[in-house]
Amino acid sequence: MSISEILGSCPVPLSRYERITLGHGSGGQLMADLIHKLFVPAFENETLAALEDQATLDFGGNGERLAFTTDSYVVKPLFFPGGDIGSLAVHGTVNDLAVGGATPLALSAGFILEEGLEVEVLTRIVKSMAEACSLAGVRLVTGDTKVVERGKADGVFVNTSGVGSVPAGLRLSISSARPGDRIVLSGTIGDHGVAILSVREGLAFETAIESDSAPLHELTRLMLEACPSIRCMRDLTRGGLSSAVHELALASGVGVRLDERAIPMKPQVRAACEILGLDSVYVANEGKLMAVVPAPDAEALVEAMRRHPLGRDAAVVGEIVEAHPRYVVMLSSVGGERVVTRISGEQLPRIC
Amino acid sequence: MSISEILGSCPVPLSRYERITLGHGSGGQLMADLIHKLFVPAFENETLAALEDQATLDFGGNGERLAFTTDSYVVKPLFFPGGDIGSLAVHGTVNDLAVGGATPLALSAGFILEEGLEVEVLTRIVKSMAEACSLAGVRLVTGDTKVVERGKADGVFVNTSGVGSVPAGLRLSISSARPGDRIVLSGTIGDHGVAILSVREGLAFETAIESDSAPLHELTRLMLEACPSIRCMRDLTRGGLSSAVHELALASGVGVRLDERAIPMKPQVRAACEILGLDSVYVANEGKLMAVVPAPDAEALVEAMRRHPLGRDAAVVGEIVEAHPRYVVMLSSVGGERVVTRISGEQLPRIC
Repeated sequence: MSISEILGSCPVPLSRYERITLGHGSGGQLMADLIHKLFVPAFENETLAALEDQATLDFGGNGERLAFTTDSYVVKPLFFPGGDIGSLAVHGTVNDLAVGGATPLALSAGFILEEGLEVEVLTRIVKSMAEACSLAGVRLVTGDTKVVERGKADGVFVNTSGVGSVPAGLRLSISSARPGDRIVLSGTIGDHGVAILSVREGLAFETAIESDSAPLHELTRLMLEACPSIRCMRDLTRGGLSSAVHELALASGVGVRLDERAIPMKPQVRAACEILGLDSVYVANEGKLMAVVPAPDAEALVEAMRRHPLGRDAAVVGEIVEAHPRYVVMLSSVGGERVVTRISGEQLPRIC
Repeated sequence: MSISEILGSCPVPLSRYERITLGHGSGGQLMADLIHKLFVPAFENETLAALEDQATLDFGGNGERLAFTTDSYVVKPLFFPGGDIGSLAVHGTVNDLAVGGATPLALSAGFILEEGLEVEVLTRIVKSMAEACSLAGVRLVTGDTKVVERGKADGVFVNTSGVGSVPAGLRLSISSARPGDRIVLSGTIGDHGVAILSVREGLAFETAIESDSAPLHELTRLMLEACPSIRCMRDLTRGGLSSAVHELALASGVGVRLDERAIPMKPQVRAACEILGLDSVYVANEGKLMAVVPAPDAEALVEAMRRHPLGRDAAVVGEIVEAHPRYVVMLSSVGGERVVTRISGEQLPRIC
C-alpha cells in the first residue's frame, strides 16, 4: 500500500464520549476533540482558537506584547529521578512562555492539597519550586491554596500560570510553517516519560534514566538571536514529538516528514522503550523543543543550539512538505515510510 | 474584663502540624501560617510578601501596571443556588483583579478532571464560565486540561488565573490603612456560604438563599472614579469579613473596630446562621468587597456605590483605630464590645 492509500483509509477518531476518560488528558486526539468541540467554541476568541502554548496580548501600548499561559500538574509519583512536581511545574510553564519567544517574568502557584498530606512533603515541593524559579530567573509573585478531604485528591496538584514579555515585532506561530521548512529538535526524546514510568513500574536499568525537565528560556533566547527567521517553536510534552508535529501540521495545513534516524535518543531510553512497548515519538519530554525554520537557516540554527548545554544534541529531524497536508510521515530507520498517527487515548497517564 | 485584658490573653495559635488539615485551606490562621512560614520565606520576593489579592508588576514602560492573580476552585457541590464552579471561577478571579484597581483583561483556565466525569457536566460548567466571561467583559485566552484516575479527584477542580491593567499612578494596598479611615462594605454578608451550606445539608428555608457570586469590576471602577482617595479594597471570600479585616489590620499595623448593627445582612441569612450556628463575619462571600477610605470621603463613596446594583446596600461598617493594633473589635448589636478572633481552622470546607 502506498502512503496515500494508507492516509485515505485512516479511521475517523471516535469523539462521542459520555464520560471523561484518562485519554482526554493525553495530549492526543481525545484531548484535541475536547478542545476543538467544547472549549474553543464555548469561549470563542481568536487568541484561544490559535491554540499556541501561550496567549499573547497587546499591553502597554509600546509594541511589547504580554504572553500568558497556564498548566496544572498532577504527575505521579510526586518525586522522580531528575525532578519533582515542583520543579516540573516551574519548568513547564517557563517553557510554554519561552517557546512563544517570551522572556518569562513571573509565575503564580495554585496548590490543591489533600487533607493528610505530610507538611514535610509540601515543604520539599515548595523548596524545589523556589530553587527552580531562582535558576530560571522568574519570581513567583502570587498564589492560592485549597485543601480537599482525604481521598478527594492525590497528595498535591499544582497549577502554575505565567506571564512574560514578547519583544515588539516578534510573532511566532504554529500556523506559519511552509513547505520546504526544516524541523529542528533540541535533543534526545523520551527521557521524562521513561524516567516516570520506570520509577512507577519499579524498573531498574543499568544506567539510571532521569527526566530531562529543564527551563528552556535561555536556549530559546539564543536561538532567536542566532536565527530571527524561526517560524515557531514548541516544547514536546504530553504526546511527545508526535503531538507537537501534528498540531503544527494541522495549524499550518502542511505535511510533516520526519527522519527516524536523525531523531536523537539515549541508548538506555531506546532500550527501555523496547522493553516497555512504547513508541518514543509519543513519549513526553519536559526539557526539549522543536523549532521550524526556513531550510537555508537550519544548519546555522543547529550550530547555535549546540553551544548551549540544553541544545548540545540538536539536529534537523524532518521537513515540512506540500504532500499529505495535516499528516505526519516517518522515514523509518530500516527503510520505508510509515504514517505516524496522532495518539488517540492515553499511553502514560499523569506524566506531568 | 476589659478589651485590653482580653487581647492580652489571646492564645498563640498552634502552628506546628505534621499533616495538612482542612483548616489549612480556610482563609484563617492555619492558612496564614502556611503562607507566612512556608510560601513567603521560600519564594522570597516583595511582590508575593505584600500578600495583596493580586500581584502588580511593571510592564511595557508607560506607567500602566500588570495585575496578575490565581485561584483554584474546589467548591462542593459543583452547582448551587446562584451559580456553579464555572461562574464562581470567573467571578473570583475577576474580583481579585478588580479590588486591586485593575481592569480585567484575560483569564486562563486549568481543569483537573476526574475520570468518569459526565461530559455533559463539564459542558454545563464550561458554558457557564463562557457566559460569565462574556458578562464580565473578559476573554478566556489559554487553558489546560488534566485527567486523573477515578477516586483521585472530586469531579472537577478549576484553576483560573487572570491578568489585568492597573492605571498609571494607582497603588492600592492593604498596608495603607490609617487610623480614622472608614471601612465601607458593598452589601449583605454571608449569602454565598449559607447558600452552599444549605444545599449541602439539604436545608430548605422559606425564602431561597442564593449565592452572591458576581463580578465586581464595574463597581470598583465606579468607586475609584467617585473616590480616588480609596486606600485599598478587598473581596470577602474564605474567612469572610473577618479574614479581610484581619489581613488589613496585620498589613497596616492598625486596629479595626466594626459596628455589628451597621453590617448589612439578609434576614433569611441571619436566620440560617442562627440555625446552623455560624458567625456571619466568618462566612464566605463571592460578590462583596470592603474598601478603606479616609473618613471625609466615606459618605460620598457609599452614595456612589449605592447607584450600582452590586453596591445598593453599601454602608460604613467600621473604622481604623490606633488602639489595639492588629486586633479586630466588634461593637455588638446588644451593646458592649467583643474581640473578633481570626478564624483558626475550617468552618465551611470547600466553599469556593
